[in-house]
Amino acid sequence: MQDYIYLDYAAATPMDSQVIDAMTPFFNHKFFNPSATYGPAKFVKNDLNNARKQIASWLGAKSEEIIFTAGGTESNNLAINGVMSLHKTKNIIISSVEHDSVLYPAKKYVHKVAPVDDKGVIILDKLLSLVDNNTTLISVMYANNEIGSIQPIKDIALGINSIKKQRLLSNNLTPLLLHVDASQAVNYLDIHHARLGIDLMTLNGGKIYGPKQSGILFVKSGVSLEPSILGGGQEKNLRSGTENVAASIGLAKALDIAQSSRKEEHNRLADLQKHFFKSIAAKIPSVTINGSIKSRLPNNLHITIPGADNERLLSQLDDRNIYCAAGSACSASSVEPSHVLKAMGIGDDLARSSLRLSMGRQTTKKDIDDTINALDEIVNKKVQYEG
Amino acid sequence: MQDYIYLDYAAATPMDSQVIDAMTPFFNHKFFNPSATYGPAKFVKNDLNNARKQIASWLGAKSEEIIFTAGGTESNNLAINGVMSLHKTKNIIISSVEHDSVLYPAKKYVHKVAPVDDKGVIILDKLLSLVDNNTTLISVMYANNEIGSIQPIKDIALGINSIKKQRLLSNNLTPLLLHVDASQAVNYLDIHHARLGIDLMTLNGGKIYGPKQSGILFVKSGVSLEPSILGGGQEKNLRSGTENVAASIGLAKALDIAQSSRKEEHNRLADLQKHFFKSIAAKIPSVTINGSIKSRLPNNLHITIPGADNERLLSQLDDRNIYCAAGSACSASSVEPSHVLKAMGIGDDLARSSLRLSMGRQTTKKDIDDTINALDEIVNKKVQYEG
Repeated sequence: MQDYIYLDYAAATPMDSQVIDAMTPFFNHKFFNPSATYGPAKFVKNDLNNARKQIASWLGAKSEEIIFTAGGTESNNLAINGVMSLHKTKNIIISSVEHDSVLYPAKKYVHKVAPVDDKGVIILDKLLSLVDNNTTLISVMYANNEIGSIQPIKDIALGINSIKKQRLLSNNLTPLLLHVDASQAVNYLDIHHARLGIDLMTLNGGKIYGPKQSGILFVKSGVSLEPSILGGGQEKNLRSGTENVAASIGLAKALDIAQSSRKEEHNRLADLQKHFFKSIAAKIPSVTINGSIKSRLPNNLHITIPGADNERLLSQLDDRNIYCAAGSACSASSVEPSHVLKAMGIGDDLARSSLRLSMGRQTTKKDIDDTINALDEIVNKKVQYEG
Repeated sequence: MQDYIYLDYAAATPMDSQVIDAMTPFFNHKFFNPSATYGPAKFVKNDLNNARKQIASWLGAKSEEIIFTAGGTESNNLAINGVMSLHKTKNIIISSVEHDSVLYPAKKYVHKVAPVDDKGVIILDKLLSLVDNNTTLISVMYANNEIGSIQPIKDIALGINSIKKQRLLSNNLTPLLLHVDASQAVNYLDIHHARLGIDLMTLNGGKIYGPKQSGILFVKSGVSLEPSILGGGQEKNLRSGTENVAASIGLAKALDIAQSSRKEEHNRLADLQKHFFKSIAAKIPSVTINGSIKSRLPNNLHITIPGADNERLLSQLDDRNIYCAAGSACSASSVEPSHVLKAMGIGDDLARSSLRLSMGRQTTKKDIDDTINALDEIVNKKVQYEG
């Protein structure tokens, strides 16, 4: 039994014990460098390639389309720098609610920012109208890390396809690629690349009960990238360095568990999500729910409690061993209000009264009820803690 | 008891059980994102900073001078791209025996290559004579991964210091920095940055019985780098991504063990090294030792057996469960002879008759004797195995 309530699964997930078990042999018994030529090293290389194949199968991809990286941030950087540094005179479009690991690399190039509506969902027409003859990459996250809104990736892909057909007719050979950061989506949504219609996809082990700083970039056959890390030529020369076989094995196992249980877990958490939104509205009528209700990850609870100060709230929840966040963990120490809420038209004052609670595999109905009661107590009864 | 003889520690090391034990709590119980604001996350951040401090102390450095990366290759890339992309009109000097993870990034900039002598040791005068008014970075590895030669880092640093004094007099404000890839050296040599006189240093967990794809770049206070991976701003914004706390804890533990036992282990292996060189010469008189005898890592045994084909040798040793290498593992599958041996003036034919055996913590005298006997049997008795 845990003596705390953890509601920050969007920031970090504990490793699944099956993941740890799968990795353990590679810490010492199977420690060999997969590039070496002797028998046991070849077995390790084989294990690595099996992990690659296993991951590829969930994406409907080929093994050679899976590039192992050291996490989601690196994958996003590789996707954007990899494409854009081969097309320096072209431009990239990103959504206004991308993670910093997409936002900052994109800013190094000619870039345009596609707006979202007040629910944090891409406005498809506006995105497509930004595409010009020089646009070569569009990067839109599958689901948002702060407010959980799910983007219409399939519709974006269809729109891109029409534009590509027009380009062919006018003899414009500039590639037009779609990159999707699926870091937050993998636990709940389909990631089949062809069904989505994407060219590049980021997965992040640290968000799916796998090892931190494990990740992949799916790179569709035929898509050319400039390498990010040079050296021994591993990972099709896109990302050199002796392979972290243990992490790749762990990531494959974590993805297996996440994807094979995703529907069941989606339903379980969607019920808790409904319950939370209903109960919190009953206890704290002034509360508003941020983000889409309909197009939303089932684990995300993002609310504003007008008049409350979220730093103080977090601290009071922490005193009760309830752990959640004001926004993305990366910028937790930043004084700037979230660029995601700002993009949705939520003012700084309301942003500073907002909380992100993100549920996960260990979250129970009791956790949710206890959290609602704690919020009720803090907000309505104005219990004050010193320090 | 192992049923094989592993002599490829320069390619990969098994994780020390103390390292695994130190990491394990961070897989699940202490899985929190160190950037989060609640109590247990702050404890994890504290653990991470303690690991940083622990590593810093072996280098005689400050905590804030230690940047955690995903391994030696990434650290080398960060050092070179980090400096050179801030000084694009300047030049970099590397030695002719650098690892590919230094060589390839350096080739993206104006670069000069400093030669080594026939023992694989930098010719100090020649290196210093290459420095011109625009040289801003010199990257020389501490000890070579193939032939084990130790470079005169302190002397290089002294030479650089005189040049820096001259530059000051002539009002040349171009920085002149020394980066050292110490990946192979850490198990046996002093890594105190001030005693060496360096500005940047790469350490690699995967070569010191720590986790693969764990590493650091030491960046001396005052040295400016362009970030490599953008995002949440972790690691002083040089290398974003949710921290792999487990790997950093493991790396710190591995470094503790390596540095506190380095002298003892140096002596133990130096004895085995002497024994090997003496015995192999007695059994196979045509054998030549590549690299310096005097200025050499104690674990490196690099020999040429004229007339032998190293691919066949490796396979025959593999049949006897003896695992070693022809060169660096990264390029094991390459048909090109080693650029290191070429730089030492060793022709392609002799290079193709060369073996790298690298000893480590588990290597015993019996392993060495058995290996010598196996080589004797293969080379002198011409035992043939069918492929």
